Amino acid sequence: MPEPPLPPELEAFLALPNAAVVASLRSDGSPHTVATWYDWEAGRALLNMDEGRIRLSQIRRDPRVALTVLGEDWGMHVSLLGRVVEIYDDVDLADIDRLAIRYQGAPFGTRDRRRVSAWFQPERWHGWDGPGPLRPETATPS
Amino acid sequence: MPEPPLPPELEAFLALPNAAVVASLRSDGSPHTVATWYDWEAGRALLNMDEGRIRLSQIRRDPRVALTVLGEDWGMHVSLLGRVVEIYDDVDLADIDRLAIRYQGAPFGTRDRRRVSAWFQPERWHGWDGPGPLRPETATPS
Repeated sequence: MPEPPLPPELEAFLALPNAAVVASLRSDGSPHTVATWYDWEAGRALLNMDEGRIRLSQIRRDPRVALTVLGEDWGMHVSLLGRVVEIYDDVDLADIDRLAIRYQGAPFGTRDRRRVSAWFQPERWHGWDGPGPLRPETATPS
Repeated sequence: MPEPPLPPELEAFLALPNAAVVASLRSDGSPHTVATWYDWEAGRALLNMDEGRIRLSQIRRDPRVALTVLGEDWGMHVSLLGRVVEIYDDVDLADIDRLAIRYQGAPFGTRDRRRVSAWFQPERWHGWDGPGPLRPETATPS
């Protein structure tokens, strides 16, 4: 599987407010998945979750994560494999507001729950666009 | 997390040709994700892949898999955690044709590659519908 940096076309794709699914590891090593908002900045993905979420304890224990991002036509999809490199309390809800504005056009509604941010650093990627796989050379603008 | 059987509303949701992402485990135990077609039958999900896919060797080695299914409005999503319980060669391409017809309305185009089917048995589930989580009691028709 190719490694970052991602081709410019994929960077542009990831900058859109796409649907995404994040996989983390349960304590027995089995995979856990859930739909998630994300934002893309400087080659990393911002994730944010309620402090009570199972996956927060999972990524604190084992930071290895995968993220699949689906286009509006999900024949286009990109998967990123890597690890969470930074976790911190989203004390003023700035990060979840950033995501809510990106996806819903308005700040996050729930203000009375503590939230945590996690930055995900991809180490490998694979992708598909309709009939065929994306490759570093073919994903570069021609 | 609740265990199967799934509430009837979720069974009906999974019967739709939704977008989905499957997570399997790489040889180092880290998660691998990719978008996938699936079909739903009798509480199990049919998956199908080209015989050259990385995830085929992954699920042969470790059958633990997770599947997140996204509604057309992906505020509705359901995740199933479990394991692959059956793997066999799709010798006449009947299973991939079933999936292609479900998703595209026509048999699968590529006929010169061998494919493999895998049946995924969920052992736990969690879901979300817009503002709140799905629970066994609230997901039952009222």
